[in-house]
Amino acid sequence: MKRISQWIVSAVVLANSTLGWAAVKTKTVEYKKGKDTFEGVLVYPDNAKGKVPGVLMIHNWMGVSEETQKQAKRMAELGYAVFAADIYGKGVRPKNAEEAGKLAGSYRSGDRKLFRERLQLGLETLRGQKEVDASKVLAVGYCFGGTGVIELARAGADVKGVVSFHGGLDSPAPADGKNIKTRVLALHGADDPYVKAEDLAAFEKEMRDNKVDWQLYKFGNAVHSFTELAAGNDNSKGAAYNAAADARSFETFKDFAKESL
Amino acid sequence: MKRISQWIVSAVVLANSTLGWAAVKTKTVEYKKGKDTFEGVLVYPDNAKGKVPGVLMIHNWMGVSEETQKQAKRMAELGYAVFAADIYGKGVRPKNAEEAGKLAGSYRSGDRKLFRERLQLGLETLRGQKEVDASKVLAVGYCFGGTGVIELARAGADVKGVVSFHGGLDSPAPADGKNIKTRVLALHGADDPYVKAEDLAAFEKEMRDNKVDWQLYKFGNAVHSFTELAAGNDNSKGAAYNAAADARSFETFKDFAKESL
Repeated sequence: MKRISQWIVSAVVLANSTLGWAAVKTKTVEYKKGKDTFEGVLVYPDNAKGKVPGVLMIHNWMGVSEETQKQAKRMAELGYAVFAADIYGKGVRPKNAEEAGKLAGSYRSGDRKLFRERLQLGLETLRGQKEVDASKVLAVGYCFGGTGVIELARAGADVKGVVSFHGGLDSPAPADGKNIKTRVLALHGADDPYVKAEDLAAFEKEMRDNKVDWQLYKFGNAVHSFTELAAGNDNSKGAAYNAAADARSFETFKDFAKESL
Repeated sequence: MKRISQWIVSAVVLANSTLGWAAVKTKTVEYKKGKDTFEGVLVYPDNAKGKVPGVLMIHNWMGVSEETQKQAKRMAELGYAVFAADIYGKGVRPKNAEEAGKLAGSYRSGDRKLFRERLQLGLETLRGQKEVDASKVLAVGYCFGGTGVIELARAGADVKGVVSFHGGLDSPAPADGKNIKTRVLALHGADDPYVKAEDLAAFEKEMRDNKVDWQLYKFGNAVHSFTELAAGNDNSKGAAYNAAADARSFETFKDFAKESL
């Protein structure tokens, strides 16, 4: 009977770990650098025994939002400790798309050096959490954050992989591709009007020239923001939710994480 | 105790169906059309209760070979009945690359009408097997066969999806894209020299113009034949095995099949 019980437990644990039913907890994490204060969110499995692999999550142009936390919860349920880092700083949260565009642009098109510093700081903060196995960490990001995690790779970050969900793939300094030490997966809406054909070609060239372990997955009929329900469903706006691309990209993330962590 | 036994069975079946441990059987299937005779191979789960979903598998330019059967076995272990159809005809097996190139070319660049007829015949034969649930069928192909399954879609085949592994993506009749009723997944080596940039662009345009449910997954550092061990490991030859691209494309196939069947 003891043997049978062990069988049941093993089989159910196996099913759980495969299918991801972990209950999760959420906590706010405040962190500092110099005079600046940041406020991220850690979402982690409730029932973990010991440390678990970590996922650094970089928000879209709205900052750490409900949307970010929803995505973090979804990944934490797979058994990872997900840290939604704060690039903008505590209390700095755009109120609308116009403010978001300006703020994100100040990092993305403006000061990529500062962008990289904030990304690195997020990574260090994730690694410092007691729930996290610091040797097993990858980074994911959405839109602005998708650009972010590729920048993190270009800065030479020692992580197990980076995954961009509908991120901008341009680089102001393509030569930095030589610093990439990690694998790169770009999940891309094939009709995303915010990623120009020449950026896509330059991204591929940068990856190829530097012999990066890279993958690009194009989802037909999907535009920008395809994982985000709040984007609505009108492709003609250039950003829209796409249920198929959302589900498929999440499955691909799961495969990538299983391979990498 | 009965309840516990059911639990064990459910949990183990769940683990099996998720992880794919099914033992498989193989049998040769001879089939005819007019004066022509064909010889395919069916690989199916040994322990299935009733009919299972079917996978039509179209061989590379060498015809139904050891390589084809290895791939068929790998998919059948997931719980599908896989029929490796014979495009060339019984006993017609090229002895080397030169013969294979000529024979494949006679369908691919020559008579695509005949190619489609042979593909359709393979599909009907799969559907006629007693092990197969004819309502749940998809098609996969390798190289020449990858081109084949997209041709099958262009012929308007009513299947749940088609998956091309390093197939040629060109079309002599792009207008046929309007006939596509099924979802299309192209798994592509990003450095495959046999798929020209203009073919790739035309493929995307064909899919987009016809609002097909399509996906294109590009694997960095992979060339033609990336799933085939026998291709060696020298990318400079234009065709080579790539363990990462092989594993990743197979995971993507699994996700696609789970979604579609």
